[in-house]
Amino acid sequence: MGNYTITVLAGDGIGPEVTDQAVRVLDAVAKRFGHTFTYHKRLVGVAAIEAEGDSISEATLELCQKSDAILFGAVGGLPNYDGRFKVKPEEALFKLRKGLQFFANLRPVKPLDSLLNASPLKAEIVKGTDLLVVRELTGGLYYGHLEPPVPGKPSAIRRTEHGTDAIDTLLYTEAEIERILRIAFDAARDRKKKVTSVDKANVLSSSVLWRQVADRVAADYPDIAFEHILVDACAMHLIRRPSNFDVIVTENLFGDILTDEASVLAGSMGMLPSASLGSHKTVHGRLGLYEPIHGSAPDITGQGKANPIAAILSAAMLLQYSLGLKDEASAVEAAVAQTIEAGYRTEDLASTGARTVNTEEMGQKIATTL
Amino acid sequence: MGNYTITVLAGDGIGPEVTDQAVRVLDAVAKRFGHTFTYHKRLVGVAAIEAEGDSISEATLELCQKSDAILFGAVGGLPNYDGRFKVKPEEALFKLRKGLQFFANLRPVKPLDSLLNASPLKAEIVKGTDLLVVRELTGGLYYGHLEPPVPGKPSAIRRTEHGTDAIDTLLYTEAEIERILRIAFDAARDRKKKVTSVDKANVLSSSVLWRQVADRVAADYPDIAFEHILVDACAMHLIRRPSNFDVIVTENLFGDILTDEASVLAGSMGMLPSASLGSHKTVHGRLGLYEPIHGSAPDITGQGKANPIAAILSAAMLLQYSLGLKDEASAVEAAVAQTIEAGYRTEDLASTGARTVNTEEMGQKIATTL
Ligand SMILES: CC(C)[C@H](C(=O)O)[C@@H](O)C(=O)O
Ligand SMILES: CC(C)[C@H](C(=O)O)[C@@H](O)C(=O)O
Repeated sequence: MGNYTITVLAGDGIGPEVTDQAVRVLDAVAKRFGHTFTYHKRLVGVAAIEAEGDSISEATLELCQKSDAILFGAVGGLPNYDGRFKVKPEEALFKLRKGLQFFANLRPVKPLDSLLNASPLKAEIVKGTDLLVVRELTGGLYYGHLEPPVPGKPSAIRRTEHGTDAIDTLLYTEAEIERILRIAFDAARDRKKKVTSVDKANVLSSSVLWRQVADRVAADYPDIAFEHILVDACAMHLIRRPSNFDVIVTENLFGDILTDEASVLAGSMGMLPSASLGSHKTVHGRLGLYEPIHGSAPDITGQGKANPIAAILSAAMLLQYSLGLKDEASAVEAAVAQTIEAGYRTEDLASTGARTVNTEEMGQKIATTL
Repeated sequence: MGNYTITVLAGDGIGPEVTDQAVRVLDAVAKRFGHTFTYHKRLVGVAAIEAEGDSISEATLELCQKSDAILFGAVGGLPNYDGRFKVKPEEALFKLRKGLQFFANLRPVKPLDSLLNASPLKAEIVKGTDLLVVRELTGGLYYGHLEPPVPGKPSAIRRTEHGTDAIDTLLYTEAEIERILRIAFDAARDRKKKVTSVDKANVLSSSVLWRQVADRVAADYPDIAFEHILVDACAMHLIRRPSNFDVIVTENLFGDILTDEASVLAGSMGMLPSASLGSHKTVHGRLGLYEPIHGSAPDITGQGKANPIAAILSAAMLLQYSLGLKDEASAVEAAVAQTIEAGYRTEDLASTGARTVNTEEMGQKIATTL
């Protein structure tokens, strides 16, 4: 029976639609378990650029830092925004991730049995898959810097004497690699006790360092099975033998690519939540940012077609990691599973269900089940 | 009835086994069509390091340059080589690609109907897939340079005042982007007239430039349908709707990851050939390097389990692109298809076949069919 403050950044496109349903489910949790959730709703992405001149304001960033957790929808990807704004809506995400030092992005992929047929993969390949991608989120090419570093310009298009070129920098420090590896190994202890580290050590210096550090960290976890795999091979094995993986740990861009790919296992991107965590502790747990792995999906915005489950499961991760409410998190997951088993589906998964519902109806069903 | 010289670099692991079968098939082509192929077999990879002190010698590189084409097996990936050699076997590949300026890597993926069931994907998803990945091969992170550039050190692990870090550089010039885009658009003209350009323009400067150049080149090809897609989304769509793609063009590392991923469509990596081309013309066509997309596979080396078809189809691409022998190339492709349709399979695809054969038997079957 606690009091918790949650900053809600619904963002662009379908962000607000799916976030509304996540809040509805959180309200149902509050009611059933006797908690009080105080929501601070703020602008982010295109709406923030239009109203506040930046993809996320300083005031909003400060508020985030003081909250117990951040519930995030989606930003960017809106058609035609490029010409209108100097700032990219996506920068809100980078400011949140980097500014609040959310270096660990957890993306679990555990397809529900009743959705096995929704995957383009054969059901027998997907069956038994229960993996967690631990993606490094504050380093690498996303924050590449020029030497000498140009503030606010992590990379650049340049005019040189030979013509125009563009440069991005992939930099990792030993400390950055070590802390994300430790997150992965710690997570594996509560799971199937296996860690797969993904790199491109036959080409990249950053991967050679990654591999050295990973070996060193692995030595501290003799109870955890450990392997290295090249990113190209991983992209293949993720589809060939997904159920062989437990925890996959990798750098920022590889994690971005591999988790989108892994979404095919779950049948729809609309099913996959994520948590971004740092070392900032709050009264109840770790400060974290929780968001669906899908984007703003402008093509289906406002049509009630969006699947709110990724957002709702992100809220479940929020309950678990930032508020320390494990039972509540499990209750949300169970309500989602029950609603799917009962045959309710949003449009992305319609072919596998008995009844197609819209975004709001799906949220209501799950909230009622709770 | 021509005379052609081919440098054969079989390399490490299963490289020699599969290359032998490709040569066998080329010999059958020579016999049937009345050509003369002169092979220069040279060392590359681990064998070259041991015998000649480098992953590929200067003399071998020169010989390659003077040949009509290069048939390549595989290098690297041998267990325990790391401790023994200063030079990485993979460097042979980089020297060949960069030294001979093979900037365009063509990787076609066209699953045979009788192998649809070999894929972890549902047959109805794979059916109809006929795509070509055009991967940029001489730029990007693979050849990242420090500023100031350190010769032979494209990237580095460094000790700084804050500890150890590692850096790689992703650099593309406008000219590099333009020439690979033109290869893709030209290829699309002979195909389904669609180009998908893959980047990460919401994060990388190099991708922003890539997108600008791609738009400019696309304007020269009004007959070709054109789209941009983010690399993360592409990793997903490649599995969800592979038959929607025609030509996919992308930078070096994205191409590496996406083509390994796309191999699941063909049922086995052992089915997928590649051609690496530059602007160096020979008497008969373009100088090119032809290699299976699979690696040296040390785990199955010497057991007769390797599938030689990727190497054999690479030889078919060699006939087409470097020797200008289209009919001969088609004859090889047809012989492969017939042999597969007749039910012969190497171990990687055994579950879909009527009779499992070893590497050599597969080569013989295909040569005899020719
Ligand atoms: C929106 C985009 C910048 C972002 C990323 O690349 O990190 C997204 O793809 C994600 O995975 O969260
Ligand atoms: C062996 C390795 C360096 C190579 C690459 O990454 O280019 C391989 O994966 C390929 O795709 O040809």
